[in-house]
Amino acid sequence: MKKINVGLVGFGNIGSGVVKILRERKSLLSEKIGLEINIKKVCDLDISRQRNVNLAKDMLTRDVKDIINDPQIDILVELIGGVHPAKEFILEALKKGKNVVTANKALLAQAGQELFSEAADRGKNIYFEASVGAGIPIIKSLREGLVANRFYSIFGIVNGTSNYILSSMSKNNCSFQEALKVARSKGFAEKDPTLDIEGMDSAHKLILLTYLGFGKFVGLKDVFVEGISHIALADINYAKELGFAIKLLAIAKKDGEDLEVKVHPTLLPENHLLSSVDGVFNAIYVASDLAGDLLFYGPGAGQLSAASAVVSDLVDLTQDIKAGLFRPTLNIIEDKTVKKLRKVDDFKSRYYIRFMVLDKPGVLARISGVLAKFGISIGSVSQKERNKTQFIPVVMLIHEAKEKDMRNALSVINRMDVIKEKPVVIRMEEA
Amino acid sequence: MKKINVGLVGFGNIGSGVVKILRERKSLLSEKIGLEINIKKVCDLDISRQRNVNLAKDMLTRDVKDIINDPQIDILVELIGGVHPAKEFILEALKKGKNVVTANKALLAQAGQELFSEAADRGKNIYFEASVGAGIPIIKSLREGLVANRFYSIFGIVNGTSNYILSSMSKNNCSFQEALKVARSKGFAEKDPTLDIEGMDSAHKLILLTYLGFGKFVGLKDVFVEGISHIALADINYAKELGFAIKLLAIAKKDGEDLEVKVHPTLLPENHLLSSVDGVFNAIYVASDLAGDLLFYGPGAGQLSAASAVVSDLVDLTQDIKAGLFRPTLNIIEDKTVKKLRKVDDFKSRYYIRFMVLDKPGVLARISGVLAKFGISIGSVSQKERNKTQFIPVVMLIHEAKEKDMRNALSVINRMDVIKEKPVVIRMEEA
Repeated sequence: MKKINVGLVGFGNIGSGVVKILRERKSLLSEKIGLEINIKKVCDLDISRQRNVNLAKDMLTRDVKDIINDPQIDILVELIGGVHPAKEFILEALKKGKNVVTANKALLAQAGQELFSEAADRGKNIYFEASVGAGIPIIKSLREGLVANRFYSIFGIVNGTSNYILSSMSKNNCSFQEALKVARSKGFAEKDPTLDIEGMDSAHKLILLTYLGFGKFVGLKDVFVEGISHIALADINYAKELGFAIKLLAIAKKDGEDLEVKVHPTLLPENHLLSSVDGVFNAIYVASDLAGDLLFYGPGAGQLSAASAVVSDLVDLTQDIKAGLFRPTLNIIEDKTVKKLRKVDDFKSRYYIRFMVLDKPGVLARISGVLAKFGISIGSVSQKERNKTQFIPVVMLIHEAKEKDMRNALSVINRMDVIKEKPVVIRMEEA
Repeated sequence: MKKINVGLVGFGNIGSGVVKILRERKSLLSEKIGLEINIKKVCDLDISRQRNVNLAKDMLTRDVKDIINDPQIDILVELIGGVHPAKEFILEALKKGKNVVTANKALLAQAGQELFSEAADRGKNIYFEASVGAGIPIIKSLREGLVANRFYSIFGIVNGTSNYILSSMSKNNCSFQEALKVARSKGFAEKDPTLDIEGMDSAHKLILLTYLGFGKFVGLKDVFVEGISHIALADINYAKELGFAIKLLAIAKKDGEDLEVKVHPTLLPENHLLSSVDGVFNAIYVASDLAGDLLFYGPGAGQLSAASAVVSDLVDLTQDIKAGLFRPTLNIIEDKTVKKLRKVDDFKSRYYIRFMVLDKPGVLARISGVLAKFGISIGSVSQKERNKTQFIPVVMLIHEAKEKDMRNALSVINRMDVIKEKPVVIRMEEA
């Protein structure tokens, strides 16, 4: 049976999952694909630590050149994460005629364009199913299953850590800090959770989803990113009373000829399927013009889940290699109906706003007067408590407005003496 | 640019959708796949009726031989539905060296094994993404995206008509007959809805899902099938009070070394994602050992949705043809941990049972006595009304029991003089 040799860089959590699956499912995979996927070499800085799989000593190396310079190795699997030296390893491997599988969303978000174009120049493929939604086959679905479709929007919950925190605040009626603490203790949040809770990890994945759906490679600086660390339990509860859940969404959305690409906490109607996605699960909602509205749901992280996606990429590559197929840009082309990336000032959205105001006659009139001056119209107002001497929360739902108008109105309102602090502003999505 | 010629049999709703997409997305598809998919001939018994796409007269034929005998046609797309003559057309096309795309679940459920084996013998492929869940890429996901996984269960809502009826009974508090009438008026139910509401369409799709997930081709006679026409509004409402929704599920589920393959109305906890799938939408839940629990959701029918899936199959076939790839059984192999198909008598399930009983002392004791005799234990009992002279509903939730024990117990209970009519029995699923 023909053997396809694989070199693996990064023998960590996912890496050892890949080795485990390729071993334990060796005959299953061979029977399915008619050839053998053989891990020839595994490279890691630490080759002495015990993993949950054992490798013969001569399969392990600390020098990536043992993989890159081995002409018998057909595929490099990059699982070290981070931009450097992962990027250099991949470029070197492509130069040596290898195909590549990676789960590295941070790298692809930053240097994907360069890497994909290098691969295309060399007639090689880079597959990256594990980089978004772990084992959920969302990338294959967008590229292949929905190949004939144009997309109105692709949006979803793509960061398990922040979804765990928001769900657990809602479920356990606890603060952000308490929820984060529990997430850490369960291994769902890193010691430094900034990438996850400030939305950057979601932004990386969103850049890939936007590329897949609209054929545009958006720079990280062009993605509007807002995290969840400012979300108070009070807002989750007020939203719930009004029939909404708060989720951190990554959104790529066409509006006319513009594309909005953004990550932010979002009020979603509680009967929206995404509102029922709790804990560390991910779900991506795809609004397509032929296949309609689709949802792809599953665990967004986990050793075997991510490794399952890496192995599916390996299987696809074996078929490409066997057939001499070259499809680095297969099914990713630019959506030419999109003329420009919308600037944040021009974003349009409905809004949830919580003001902390003095409970005095005329306060609401003053606030709504300013909003009206900027052409912003109020859908509903609810005052949550009564207290003559303290600042009290007033929650407004605002009809669709332009971000710029909203910001300008708020900067006027913030200067009022009846306003205690910067209001909490959370965008809303319908679909 | 290389051209792949397609012959289409069945110029109905989905067929004209396929023509429409291939035309309107011609340049998009060519750019993506590097070759042209060309509809060379379209065959239908009626070639004079106006469709929403116009074809040159010489492209239309009433004689399928014009496609089957044309050596320039690489792919036959079969969209006439039904077993005959679709089966003969496909067999003939395979014999002539053509690959095949079909959306025909009834045919594949009945003759899939023969057709796939004929295709394999001739080194040709049969793709059938549109046959389950229309545009939802569930077949590709099971075959390719989850290639390394073993499955615990695959279950879901795969018939839009019955889901529309059940959702609308629940939402509009109306009877089955009223909901069916509305479904008909909206075009969501056929004039004769038997195939849909009695579960047979779901069973066809389940046979394909079972083949994809477990590599077993189960005969229709081996699938336990129960429809929804006996579901009363009262049961939907009692279930709702207890925190459950009633859905028609198609279920393939491993339990130990047995496989249960069954279609029946099912009580699902209301917080299960499938409970939120309303109207004509479909959703398939996949419990896999590596990628975890996944859900695939989308419209289960519709011209463009199904056509989107047919076109994705065509694209995959063009890649296979270009590369000389032969993968008729790619990624479908037998799960050898499954030793036998479980007989319905041995099914295990929790149950919802509504008895209509006389409100007399000792009635509950008699019923529960019989259940206990058969080793069946009661989880909860609620009596819905009080009325000394009439039969009143008593709803029981039963802990996991064997189907045979349940049937035996019920046949004893049914003979009691305090029981008005055959009780309503609905199975429950947890996961």
